[in-house]
Amino acid sequence: MSYKFLYKINSPADLRQQKLADLPEVCDELRRFIIESEAVNPAHFGANLGVIELTVALHYVFDVPKDNLIWDVGHQAYGHKILTGRRDSFKTNRKYKGISGFPSPAESEYDSFGVGHSSTSISAALGMAVAAKMNGSNERTIAVIGDGALSGGEAFEALNNAAVCKPNLLIILNDNKIAIDETPGALREYLTDISTSKTYNKVKDDVWHFLGKVNKLGPDVRHFTQRIDNAVKSIVMKQSNLFESMNIRYFGPVDGHDVLSLVKLFEDLKNINGPLLLHLITQKGKGFKPAEENPREWHAAPGKFEVETGKLIANEEDHKTPQKYQDIFGEAILQLASDNEKIVAISPAMVSGSGLLKMFEKYPERSFDVGISEQHAVTFAAGLAIKGMIPYCCIYSTFAQRAFDQIVHDVALQNLHVVMCLDRAGLVGADGATHHGAFDISVLRCIPNLVVSAPSDEYQLRNLLYTAQLEKNNFPFVIRYPRGKSVFPKSEIEFSEMEIGKGKCVREGDDVAIMSIGTTGQTAIKVADKLKSDDNVVVSVYDMIFVKPVDETMLRDACQKHKYIVTIEDNAIACGFGSEVLEFVSDNEYDVKVKRFGIPDYFVAHGTQEELIHECGYDADSVYGWIKKRLFS
Amino acid sequence: MSYKFLYKINSPADLRQQKLADLPEVCDELRRFIIESEAVNPAHFGANLGVIELTVALHYVFDVPKDNLIWDVGHQAYGHKILTGRRDSFKTNRKYKGISGFPSPAESEYDSFGVGHSSTSISAALGMAVAAKMNGSNERTIAVIGDGALSGGEAFEALNNAAVCKPNLLIILNDNKIAIDETPGALREYLTDISTSKTYNKVKDDVWHFLGKVNKLGPDVRHFTQRIDNAVKSIVMKQSNLFESMNIRYFGPVDGHDVLSLVKLFEDLKNINGPLLLHLITQKGKGFKPAEENPREWHAAPGKFEVETGKLIANEEDHKTPQKYQDIFGEAILQLASDNEKIVAISPAMVSGSGLLKMFEKYPERSFDVGISEQHAVTFAAGLAIKGMIPYCCIYSTFAQRAFDQIVHDVALQNLHVVMCLDRAGLVGADGATHHGAFDISVLRCIPNLVVSAPSDEYQLRNLLYTAQLEKNNFPFVIRYPRGKSVFPKSEIEFSEMEIGKGKCVREGDDVAIMSIGTTGQTAIKVADKLKSDDNVVVSVYDMIFVKPVDETMLRDACQKHKYIVTIEDNAIACGFGSEVLEFVSDNEYDVKVKRFGIPDYFVAHGTQEELIHECGYDADSVYGWIKKRLFS
Repeated sequence: MSYKFLYKINSPADLRQQKLADLPEVCDELRRFIIESEAVNPAHFGANLGVIELTVALHYVFDVPKDNLIWDVGHQAYGHKILTGRRDSFKTNRKYKGISGFPSPAESEYDSFGVGHSSTSISAALGMAVAAKMNGSNERTIAVIGDGALSGGEAFEALNNAAVCKPNLLIILNDNKIAIDETPGALREYLTDISTSKTYNKVKDDVWHFLGKVNKLGPDVRHFTQRIDNAVKSIVMKQSNLFESMNIRYFGPVDGHDVLSLVKLFEDLKNINGPLLLHLITQKGKGFKPAEENPREWHAAPGKFEVETGKLIANEEDHKTPQKYQDIFGEAILQLASDNEKIVAISPAMVSGSGLLKMFEKYPERSFDVGISEQHAVTFAAGLAIKGMIPYCCIYSTFAQRAFDQIVHDVALQNLHVVMCLDRAGLVGADGATHHGAFDISVLRCIPNLVVSAPSDEYQLRNLLYTAQLEKNNFPFVIRYPRGKSVFPKSEIEFSEMEIGKGKCVREGDDVAIMSIGTTGQTAIKVADKLKSDDNVVVSVYDMIFVKPVDETMLRDACQKHKYIVTIEDNAIACGFGSEVLEFVSDNEYDVKVKRFGIPDYFVAHGTQEELIHECGYDADSVYGWIKKRLFS
Repeated sequence: MSYKFLYKINSPADLRQQKLADLPEVCDELRRFIIESEAVNPAHFGANLGVIELTVALHYVFDVPKDNLIWDVGHQAYGHKILTGRRDSFKTNRKYKGISGFPSPAESEYDSFGVGHSSTSISAALGMAVAAKMNGSNERTIAVIGDGALSGGEAFEALNNAAVCKPNLLIILNDNKIAIDETPGALREYLTDISTSKTYNKVKDDVWHFLGKVNKLGPDVRHFTQRIDNAVKSIVMKQSNLFESMNIRYFGPVDGHDVLSLVKLFEDLKNINGPLLLHLITQKGKGFKPAEENPREWHAAPGKFEVETGKLIANEEDHKTPQKYQDIFGEAILQLASDNEKIVAISPAMVSGSGLLKMFEKYPERSFDVGISEQHAVTFAAGLAIKGMIPYCCIYSTFAQRAFDQIVHDVALQNLHVVMCLDRAGLVGADGATHHGAFDISVLRCIPNLVVSAPSDEYQLRNLLYTAQLEKNNFPFVIRYPRGKSVFPKSEIEFSEMEIGKGKCVREGDDVAIMSIGTTGQTAIKVADKLKSDDNVVVSVYDMIFVKPVDETMLRDACQKHKYIVTIEDNAIACGFGSEVLEFVSDNEYDVKVKRFGIPDYFVAHGTQEELIHECGYDADSVYGWIKKRLFS
């Protein structure tokens, strides 16, 4: 099938040249383009198909970048990118040096604000709209936020503030009833309630019950009752509305897939001043049957697929390849929970991504999806812990930044037995700058009372998870582990306890000690092996496992026996594990030289993990090269 | 006046021995005790007087610590402390080694959860209530949260989750219409609306307007209309309720100062399962006229005062003593804003504490109190900045932890011209562990794109504030400064530009270089002066001013010319400024020894700033002692 419209549209101005009546076909083409692109370059999927009509209607009516358009989270902005000059570069989506999977003002003027984390759009839009007011500009500002993202506290803070600032701000609630997993929470129930008008119907039923009796009194009365009904309806609908109760005018709910109606609606809304909220009902995966039927699996395309059927194109991997860390985690917590009934699991809307589906299935009463609410997740965990539960609070490293204060103030300060499982630590690859877990070691190792650990392989991950729940280890226990495959082919193995603050000497050698934390331990071994095989140099390798408390015996050993210590970590070099080694060396006045490898002081973009690690210079070749040069020149 | 009841009450059990009819008198005594105590030991005031009746009624009906009682923020928990065995130690409130100004489980089993930061109580209570449910315990859990704290996003996240978990949880909304300053936001307007029943009245008026006409049809109809009215009332009141719309049963509003009614009400609510919210109307400062009339000034008692009149007992200071840093800041931003109309001020409910009152008064349209919403405050600032405004976002260092992700993700990653003014950095004194700004240097210096600075005196603070708004410095600019008095007697002086990343050599000497950041620069000078006068040793002193970018020229100078570098900072030693010096020394392979002074790796409690700094060992005497020992032994 060829494209009649899409290749003529290189900017929103081109889109606005199209006839209104042709927009449904433009939508079809845009949808098809995304499906065909993702069939060979899989990426975020369902949410993008759900906002095709919205995207086309917005760009048809509004004038971005003069008007400001902010996509919350931003993984639904592919249609927007394609319509705003990035159709041809879309094949580089999320690839190294290609376009980003998220809106970014650095990439395009059509991306009004950079996003990636959830629930920021209303705050940002409010700032932009207030600035417009102050600048005397008549530009419009639109925030598109999903029902999942709306549960994040920051979105509520922004709504609370919007009614006071009263700028021209259109909030579009993209209600597809699902984030990645089903959206939990009272807000979700509320949105369903207003969508189905239960509230109004309840009032109507009750009122009519009485009015029915009045009706017996004659036709004149019937006329009045009709008018009463209308009055009650308008007031009840208005006042019972969560958003109206916060002084934000509410419109909807309306069908988010009728592009012609949306255009008409936006033309109207464009002329209404003040903060407005439009409630759109959309379907995740709209127009692609497998995604409509299984929105969780198709949140991101699960692999390359056949365009017609959605059938996955088999890849080469078999069941003997290493499992993902998230799945190792998921199996371990399930196993631990079956032995220790105090264990509970908490996820802020990342149940499947965190590998927690089985836990949630088997122990629903001990599993809590709290919605996109990292702050609440951590304090909630603290509350559970203070009453004797052992919560495993599973948050991606980058999103745990959202709960930093709660980790400090509620967990660490009270020294509570909360296990913080920080998945996606280090460079995450294709999700890029907004999603790297680049700072967790830096910001957590300065917090008193925390144990901060990072396994170098899946066995250590399992054993750390086991160790963290032991009664005697009733203190805050952070375990950070990366995105992606673990090290060894899948196998069964028993849990065994790890000693807190004890590292592991993996190789004994002279002159140079490589000290690693987390899965950079695998890099360290590669470097050591290569030095031995290629250069006949035997170096020591220490897998430290614990950032905090750090193994001082091992550090002492390393300082005393070597001329150089090389540290490797998948964390910012600044303040990181290597910096901790420097602190030890300095405090104990050793003379050893220290060279630190890790993430440098800039925001790393997207690409494969390998590409990015190479760029950052802490891949095996780079470390090997440095050591060799040091020793032989 | 003597106390008839209070000295017989050493625990809630003793309170429960009292006759119900005597409770009003118990309340009077408790109130008087707090007033008399604070007259000589000023502390948080108004909020405590506002919850006297609530406190007495709660402890009369519930059985803490079997039941769980969580005070949000916790500065209103003095009555609770006094009734739970801390009456006699209350004179040590907030003093070094005395009791804490906030609830702390480490201090008393009656303090069910540690607090200090806002908006955590519902999350924590929900965790505890869910644990109770899992443990099969019939204990009750009560969270007391103010209307200000309820605007914090985490509270909303918790409410959203509460309706799903459905445990036995009583949320008491302590609605005193004010946080420290007037509470802004839609939520505030909403609470006023339901308190005064505007919603219901509107419905009633409209319905009656029609029914009036129906009434003409005769007395039978009048009877029906009465019943319609009742039906509409019950439905409208229920459904129009924000909390009911989130599936949390709402009760109220009720008078929070009628202790007998409160007891009766709690007896009833105790037997209702599921999440409930009771809306109490209280008055900040209740029972003490000056505080009732001026709740902002009496949020904390402004000094020692006469019990009868509230008249402040004059202290010795005159206008020539140095101003507080917050006031220096407040005057500077006012002056800058008058010259640069792009400057706007943002405060998350800390307008007076941040010294922003004059700015808010003079430039209301450029001043935003966003409520207790640190996350929103920062992203809102980012939105303003991306449209060309220059927001000064003023947050206490400890509360800025709440916005860490927004600083990283919205401000730093987009490299936006937001000026983050972090007041109360370092050890804050009497507020203690929850309030120290101990980590900001550590967690911010690893974030790319940020400029992180700290003035050593008020002139530098002014000049940094000036420098930060210059058009050419259009990047994120952090300025952190401490609580308390600045250095010099008040005087007028012009702004002057500071070079980004340039420190200041204050003394030139040999052997030892003292490098300081922020107001520890004053300590450094004292140490140097003492070494010179007492020991005839001349040391170098470098006031670094910028943590990031750090002055590498100066560091190089220090490394090359000295045997020892001594660093001083009012931040965690781990990952701090001293650690940055180590990184530089290591990266450049200098041989100089580095000794770091700062906050050690534990949560420091409360006391005066001097006491705490001495305890932490970075006071002038300690640093002097170390250097002397090093040089002469």
